Amino acid sequence: MAKQVATNITWHEGHVDRAMRNKLLKQRGVTIWFTGLPSSGKSTIAFTLEHALVERGHLAYVLDGDNIRHGLNKNLGFSPEDRNENIRRIGEVAKLFADAGVLTCTSFISPYRADRDQARKIHAAAELPFIEVFVKASVDLCEQRDPKGLYKKARAGELKEFTGVSAPYEEPLQPEVVLDSGELSPQQAAGVVLDYLNTKGFLHA
Amino acid sequence: MAKQVATNITWHEGHVDRAMRNKLLKQRGVTIWFTGLPSSGKSTIAFTLEHALVERGHLAYVLDGDNIRHGLNKNLGFSPEDRNENIRRIGEVAKLFADAGVLTCTSFISPYRADRDQARKIHAAAELPFIEVFVKASVDLCEQRDPKGLYKKARAGELKEFTGVSAPYEEPLQPEVVLDSGELSPQQAAGVVLDYLNTKGFLHA
Repeated sequence: MAKQVATNITWHEGHVDRAMRNKLLKQRGVTIWFTGLPSSGKSTIAFTLEHALVERGHLAYVLDGDNIRHGLNKNLGFSPEDRNENIRRIGEVAKLFADAGVLTCTSFISPYRADRDQARKIHAAAELPFIEVFVKASVDLCEQRDPKGLYKKARAGELKEFTGVSAPYEEPLQPEVVLDSGELSPQQAAGVVLDYLNTKGFLHA
Repeated sequence: MAKQVATNITWHEGHVDRAMRNKLLKQRGVTIWFTGLPSSGKSTIAFTLEHALVERGHLAYVLDGDNIRHGLNKNLGFSPEDRNENIRRIGEVAKLFADAGVLTCTSFISPYRADRDQARKIHAAAELPFIEVFVKASVDLCEQRDPKGLYKKARAGELKEFTGVSAPYEEPLQPEVVLDSGELSPQQAAGVVLDYLNTKGFLHA
């Protein structure tokens, strides 16, 4: 076992407060909640934004299907209850990340208004900011892209309750940011969000 | 909506890799898993460590009962299945924090070896480091402290399956760090872990 050598320091038992985290990271923790149809471009935009933020010296992190569905939420299916619990857990984890001071991007279809509103409320209760980003794209456009062939499978009946084909997507009523995926490249879309974060003061202590 | 002004920059779609995060934060993401009896001092040590790390310019964050049991895991009780799921989710969330580059402290009794080993495996599968810190204290000592009066309630039969009284605690067999809670003050104990992190290179890029 290591022997204690750091004896010339003051120790505090209290929790680290947000002001101290902001000062350390030179930013304000926030959740940036991307929502939109499958293949609308959410994850591409989120990762482009993450990269740009980290290059500028900011700590950003993306929660998406890859790191959530195969881990934390691997015991959830696609029933209505499980979809709700899926988004609930993501909202709670995003809240923890934002509390830690991270610029936290979530990239999930999150088709139901009630679920997104629940995530927003979880943040409000913890006095943490929540930015809903609607990645707007028509079903036609998403279906033309369809990089994973999911729309094709859904049309063939191989995927049940597929959002945009056989399950509803409820558009946000008052999102903080709307990105028109048909007009903006992923880089332009990420730039819009980056400018929004900067303008709103999230990229300063 | 904000207009895009940041046009003079390079954009990348790729994920941010760990080396880039380490360089940004000047540290290596890791999970520091505190385990021990109720009232052994886990949370006090974890928060003391967190404070010391942030004061030194490092991003640390504590996951504990307060921010997990009332949020992410509020739909879990204390049955064996729920206890297992509780620790599983904490392991998954800690993994995400460590992946983001954070010095992540978890402070939970986590009495079962199998559950802690599962958390360790989750980290190993993601090639992330995991440090098990055993906060060692006798039941007698913990019962003397008993700041929340929980042992008293357990002895009176008001709390069922209380670890140390009516439910087992399985000591770690090969923890990376052992802290003797009867001998070390919380500050000294936090110092031992801080020195361990420093010696093992977690406090450098």
